[in-house]
Amino acid sequence: MKNTFGNNITFTLFGESHGTAIGVVIDGISPGLVVDEEYIAEKLARRRPSSSIDTARREADKFVILSGVFEGKTTGTPIAIVIPNEDTHSADYGKTHGIARPSHADFAAHCKYHGFEDWRGGGHFSGRITAALVAAGAIVMHALEDLGISVGAHILSCGKAYDRHFDDVADDVASLRGAAFPVLDERSREMIEREIISAKEAETSVGGVVQAAIVGVPAGVGEPWFDSVEGMLSHALFSLGGVKGVEFGLGFAFADVRGDECNDAFRVENGAIVTETNNNGGINGGITNGMPIVFSCAVKPTPSISREQKTVNYLTNENTTLSIVGRHDPAIVRRICPVIESASAIVIADMLAGRFGTDVLTRGITL
Amino acid sequence: MKNTFGNNITFTLFGESHGTAIGVVIDGISPGLVVDEEYIAEKLARRRPSSSIDTARREADKFVILSGVFEGKTTGTPIAIVIPNEDTHSADYGKTHGIARPSHADFAAHCKYHGFEDWRGGGHFSGRITAALVAAGAIVMHALEDLGISVGAHILSCGKAYDRHFDDVADDVASLRGAAFPVLDERSREMIEREIISAKEAETSVGGVVQAAIVGVPAGVGEPWFDSVEGMLSHALFSLGGVKGVEFGLGFAFADVRGDECNDAFRVENGAIVTETNNNGGINGGITNGMPIVFSCAVKPTPSISREQKTVNYLTNENTTLSIVGRHDPAIVRRICPVIESASAIVIADMLAGRFGTDVLTRGITL
Amino acid sequence: MKNTFGNNITFTLFGESHGTAIGVVIDGISPGLVVDEEYIAEKLARRRPSSSIDTARREADKFVILSGVFEGKTTGTPIAIVIPNEDTHSADYGKTHGIARPSHADFAAHCKYHGFEDWRGGGHFSGRITAALVAAGAIVMHALEDLGISVGAHILSCGKAYDRHFDDVADDVASLRGAAFPVLDERSREMIEREIISAKEAETSVGGVVQAAIVGVPAGVGEPWFDSVEGMLSHALFSLGGVKGVEFGLGFAFADVRGDECNDAFRVENGAIVTETNNNGGINGGITNGMPIVFSCAVKPTPSISREQKTVNYLTNENTTLSIVGRHDPAIVRRICPVIESASAIVIADMLAGRFGTDVLTRGITL
Amino acid sequence: MKNTFGNNITFTLFGESHGTAIGVVIDGISPGLVVDEEYIAEKLARRRPSSSIDTARREADKFVILSGVFEGKTTGTPIAIVIPNEDTHSADYGKTHGIARPSHADFAAHCKYHGFEDWRGGGHFSGRITAALVAAGAIVMHALEDLGISVGAHILSCGKAYDRHFDDVADDVASLRGAAFPVLDERSREMIEREIISAKEAETSVGGVVQAAIVGVPAGVGEPWFDSVEGMLSHALFSLGGVKGVEFGLGFAFADVRGDECNDAFRVENGAIVTETNNNGGINGGITNGMPIVFSCAVKPTPSISREQKTVNYLTNENTTLSIVGRHDPAIVRRICPVIESASAIVIADMLAGRFGTDVLTRGITL
Repeated sequence: MKNTFGNNITFTLFGESHGTAIGVVIDGISPGLVVDEEYIAEKLARRRPSSSIDTARREADKFVILSGVFEGKTTGTPIAIVIPNEDTHSADYGKTHGIARPSHADFAAHCKYHGFEDWRGGGHFSGRITAALVAAGAIVMHALEDLGISVGAHILSCGKAYDRHFDDVADDVASLRGAAFPVLDERSREMIEREIISAKEAETSVGGVVQAAIVGVPAGVGEPWFDSVEGMLSHALFSLGGVKGVEFGLGFAFADVRGDECNDAFRVENGAIVTETNNNGGINGGITNGMPIVFSCAVKPTPSISREQKTVNYLTNENTTLSIVGRHDPAIVRRICPVIESASAIVIADMLAGRFGTDVLTRGITL
Repeated sequence: MKNTFGNNITFTLFGESHGTAIGVVIDGISPGLVVDEEYIAEKLARRRPSSSIDTARREADKFVILSGVFEGKTTGTPIAIVIPNEDTHSADYGKTHGIARPSHADFAAHCKYHGFEDWRGGGHFSGRITAALVAAGAIVMHALEDLGISVGAHILSCGKAYDRHFDDVADDVASLRGAAFPVLDERSREMIEREIISAKEAETSVGGVVQAAIVGVPAGVGEPWFDSVEGMLSHALFSLGGVKGVEFGLGFAFADVRGDECNDAFRVENGAIVTETNNNGGINGGITNGMPIVFSCAVKPTPSISREQKTVNYLTNENTTLSIVGRHDPAIVRRICPVIESASAIVIADMLAGRFGTDVLTRGITL
Repeated sequence: MKNTFGNNITFTLFGESHGTAIGVVIDGISPGLVVDEEYIAEKLARRRPSSSIDTARREADKFVILSGVFEGKTTGTPIAIVIPNEDTHSADYGKTHGIARPSHADFAAHCKYHGFEDWRGGGHFSGRITAALVAAGAIVMHALEDLGISVGAHILSCGKAYDRHFDDVADDVASLRGAAFPVLDERSREMIEREIISAKEAETSVGGVVQAAIVGVPAGVGEPWFDSVEGMLSHALFSLGGVKGVEFGLGFAFADVRGDECNDAFRVENGAIVTETNNNGGINGGITNGMPIVFSCAVKPTPSISREQKTVNYLTNENTTLSIVGRHDPAIVRRICPVIESASAIVIADMLAGRFGTDVLTRGITL
Repeated sequence: MKNTFGNNITFTLFGESHGTAIGVVIDGISPGLVVDEEYIAEKLARRRPSSSIDTARREADKFVILSGVFEGKTTGTPIAIVIPNEDTHSADYGKTHGIARPSHADFAAHCKYHGFEDWRGGGHFSGRITAALVAAGAIVMHALEDLGISVGAHILSCGKAYDRHFDDVADDVASLRGAAFPVLDERSREMIEREIISAKEAETSVGGVVQAAIVGVPAGVGEPWFDSVEGMLSHALFSLGGVKGVEFGLGFAFADVRGDECNDAFRVENGAIVTETNNNGGINGGITNGMPIVFSCAVKPTPSISREQKTVNYLTNENTTLSIVGRHDPAIVRRICPVIESASAIVIADMLAGRFGTDVLTRGITL
């Protein structure tokens, strides 16, 4: 599936940055779920650029639900959500058509679509499309919360600035809910903002790491080959433009420890089987073990920078230079947090529906 | 799809570590491909335990092709390959049935399959299943080589030991072909072997990082949402038992650099558009840009260690301890290299078939 | 996939009869196809109720393309088309909520969606949704015509009235293009209209058979198990509300002939291999043989009739009676012809893309 | 998916008529199902040629379960079943290689696979492959029976001979269980056998209609667009070589009745909602309504006949003639009945798993 994700609940994204509208069709969701438009709007607000450290493009994100919701609840049939594009400055892009923005998809898209792609503002590759993902994710997250499952993402690092790691994961995830600037330690915020402003002032951009957790998923969800929880989550997460790495639990830090140091010992606690540590990030052999699912995403610096860069014009096949003057974010680590939460919620909902049936989101999980 | 991967060419794995046989069905592959059983056997040999730093289980991996090959060539219909299990010591496992091996899938599988899983030697979760993946991958890799596409993986690090990074990627990948101990710098081998032996002597295990590259894939392959090259590759790679992290290009190192430092400048070179650096690992916006696809996998220490560990018996819900006496590898970084190559080849072949049609492997790519 | 069809080019339908809008997302279509809005409008016009023998509901079918088309051509990214609902008389339905219309989906939908379904006018089960299918099909048919592939459907019978069978299939299909009342023999029209008017006057409805053909598909398209051309076409065709039977070539008439009477003898004609008869409807073993694909669909009488019927109220679980006063068609054999053409075009395009690659619709077929 | 069917439980077929073995991989089936090898053998026996009216090829159908079954029960992981080919007379076919058997797949396959297909005995297109389908279907049917769901198929007609239609569907289906010659009225058997013998004596073959029913499926299963029960069943049924038509309920007989004559009136009966007639074959709007699912398949005369036929040699592109001397059935209406039952069971199991979750077959349906 090209622009569709999911085996049981499917999410189909459409739209271009400077086209009429972007949107999403969600199919396979349980009938009878409350669709709270305010809740969706809140999630969209968290993703929206809002301050001087974000892009100057300001979209109202006035979404319209065209189908699949009746009298405030899901019908069980496909939900189509459309978000019109309003604040488009296509002229900014017209001048540079053909000039590949380094580390952007322009050139790769040109090769794939033979020049027929909508090249304005990154077209279908634009981060703008993630607004639709967040709207879809909001409907799912609302339902997951009713099942006792919650998802939270925070900026773990940005350049040299950093936040603390998850500690009591459930509490930490709860504290992130609705956070405009998602960090676990409030002091991290200033440090991170300073890093971003410094990059902006230097006419460049900066990357970071986002750490996320999903709590409340029962043990026994996932497939060994190939639809492991890691496989499904990473598949969705790598769709997000800036994500270039995904790791679970200790991740790359597993490389220089030994088995006796990192194996998660099991223990019976109040009749339930838990692990003493959670170095595997809640997943063994691709299947949930009942511990929080914990993972991190490497986010590269926004490719759009004002500083002059060497590049090519792929229409004329000539070398040239480019200073990007359009509106762009010096860092996306903040804005990507709700997107990562949405993508994760979508994956988990899909996997739960496969395991427990179409009605799982309204009926709940019966082990 | 649970145990099937691929949209256009599909790979379905079956089998349990101590069952009658493991195997794979490959469907959708071009008719007319030469199937070289010796080539497959060579790939299987690279994965096979062979020395004192590997598990003592010795499987001949005598594969049988049941269908889909006629007069030495693929017919275009499903290829079923079966590899009998021979050297099974199920008794080793019987004694510890119910005792969850820490960081193994035993407990998660028990929750998923309600106790009906074949628990002997990890059952369907065993690394043994990757032999079938390698057999399937060999058929594909052979065909990809004819298209000028090659895949190579080497041990980048193992505990404190390390190999060098890719330099001239095409040459390096060529040098890895057939390597029994896949490293780029021969001196790394001794260092890594020492690390593994040391872990074994300490009755524990050790992790590492495997770096891989795919060269020769043309620009324009992949989908923005959700079947990006990163998404598809990571989906397949995270199926492999020990893989807990996947990163492309700079990956997690993107987190503390700035855009001007890591953007890959384009340049016209001999009429072709290339990038000066390849920090994005050959992928922009999920689509190949024609540069080598470069990625790394974090491999955790083998969970099976001889040292006594705290754990539970999930049949009785009681705390207990476990010293694993079965046969196991103190590190899988070496043996996982051909598996990562196979998984990668499978993903790329599937994506090429989607882009250029069912016959791409025999007919070649026409841009 | 629930509301999505296709392996390579996918079509996702959404919307309810009395909701805000209906629509479709088409994904995987070749970049660079001309999107002719007038052509789409013409196809929609053929499906639209227009005379006294059709429902009184009059929808303008003013479609809007939200994405995937740039400067008049497909971009290769998902095309979202939305058609607002305008002429909805929901009040007609409110009075009878809970009363199952016999042979309609009301009761089955109630069981499936637990009462959360949008029950107004059949909701998501309404024939109204086929307008989106026709819009999507028009884009595809336009492209197929450029490849020399055309699709035509005509009313073969309606009650006791009938049209002639295909004779010179290519000519016949050409003659159907744009036909407001699709019959091969103009004299059939009056006979069929009389049958429909007679049913209407008797406060009932009437069924029929639609025969269709696809010409120009090369030999060698389809899969033996399970994605045969018959399997894929029937899968799509049975989605259409009134279709209760699908047969290929002789179909059910095969039951009482003998092999020597119905086998299609091959013959070399001008260097090409053709069959003397086409009793198999262009398909052998699920694969096209290069002859026209010919099939028929049984269409049941519209379930909505004015005459009083015995039924139940599924909200109160009581017996009751119902006289349907809403707007409805006494027969859908005419209006379903362009829908069957669209569904067939969609299936064929999807199968061609799987066989010859994503770009087949713009590049053409290279055998 | 090419040779795979199913969204939730998948069935992948492999093998060629004269290859080493045929087989199937079933994935996604509930853990804990009893796998009764005797029951499977019985189903295979029903499909096996056994008398003078069947082909002379005699296969023992000694199936081997390679994986997914442990201690007599399903594990929940993929079940691979292999059936070796034993009684192959490939020499019969070698002489006629290149000569297209009329109405067989030879020529179409040659076009699709460019001559690399295994052409011996129809290769992958052979009815032989349905033995694997029956073995898979047997595992599923056994489980469905425990849920109170049963499937039965009988020969409704064969040439001029006929059986009666279903009357009390549940009783009739029960009476078909295990029937060696599946008819509802014992007197039909002689009539049908005479028809087949007569065709055989005339060196030709004869077609027929098979009618089938599935009882016990609750209301509310299926999807409106596109995975209707009709769409899914027909998709699977049209895979079967000789099936050229599928109709539900009245099917093509809907064409000349009126709505008031064929609408199925609802009625409350013992607190449950049922219909007075079942002209829609248990499906409204693509969704089950709780009544028996009833459908018929048109089966064409076996294309293999001894009588001389005109045809071509597609290797030399010349006209020629052919008298088929290999072993073949003069009619397949009897042997296809258990195959149709299996295919139907597979579809229903898949749809139930999608609706009620992976564990539905062991846990049962909870509405």
